Amino acid sequence: MPRQSPALTKALNGSCAIARCLGVLDDPWSFLLVREALLGRRTFAEFRDSLGIASDVLSARLAKLVEADVMTRTSYQEPGQRTREAYDLTPAGRELSAVLIAMKQWGETHVPREAPAKVDARGRDGESSVTFQLVDEHDVAVPADEVTFVRS
Amino acid sequence: MPRQSPALTKALNGSCAIARCLGVLDDPWSFLLVREALLGRRTFAEFRDSLGIASDVLSARLAKLVEADVMTRTSYQEPGQRTREAYDLTPAGRELSAVLIAMKQWGETHVPREAPAKVDARGRDGESSVTFQLVDEHDVAVPADEVTFVRS
Repeated sequence: MPRQSPALTKALNGSCAIARCLGVLDDPWSFLLVREALLGRRTFAEFRDSLGIASDVLSARLAKLVEADVMTRTSYQEPGQRTREAYDLTPAGRELSAVLIAMKQWGETHVPREAPAKVDARGRDGESSVTFQLVDEHDVAVPADEVTFVRS
Repeated sequence: MPRQSPALTKALNGSCAIARCLGVLDDPWSFLLVREALLGRRTFAEFRDSLGIASDVLSARLAKLVEADVMTRTSYQEPGQRTREAYDLTPAGRELSAVLIAMKQWGETHVPREAPAKVDARGRDGESSVTFQLVDEHDVAVPADEVTFVRS
């Protein structure tokens, strides 16, 4: 699997917090693996079958997410089976839900599809839909297309 | 530049809205280019110099963002110079600020660095900091680490 160019490694290192997040989620598979984990998938086979990802790529991506403390790996054994490994999101990994919800809302608005496969974000009760809002220091909603960035 | 494997193309196509957003922002450079555009950079040279990205990679990434309607390309000419091109975020591109703000808050919390380079998000007045919150259907704040996803 091709990895980062030296220029990209430099752009992601020691830099702003956006880049530091990208240093952890550095290809689309990583985001999709977090999505699948938030959907309740835990085992290597579950991730592989739901995403259609090659086993070697999956191994490398899961190892990186474990190393970055986004997931933890635990061993388990079912009777008569060999030992297998399960992957669970850490609290930090679960908090990536915010990034995925922001992406979901953008994709729904700007890359519409007929009859799309749908993923909904739910709160602790499993019932209420969760949405993403931007707010200013006074808790007033800010439209995303009015935001600018500044270096400070 | 290595492009998507067939497995990844399949995972990103016709799928959930998160994957559709990842189909547009399919490598870390694309996110960083949107960040730089939100910081006010417009020209090829500005993007290249601020990110240290190779020219051929930059050309390909900008072309993809234009094709996806995240940026528009316009030609301009300064006296005595050849025609050059500038890139501006579309309204859809500006709305990616939401995704980057979610990544920034995650990076600040979970990948801390001493003396990091800092990017702040600001509202229309240029003064007020913008942050995100997750809310349920009753407008009650939901901690990001309590969110689960469901297919519907």
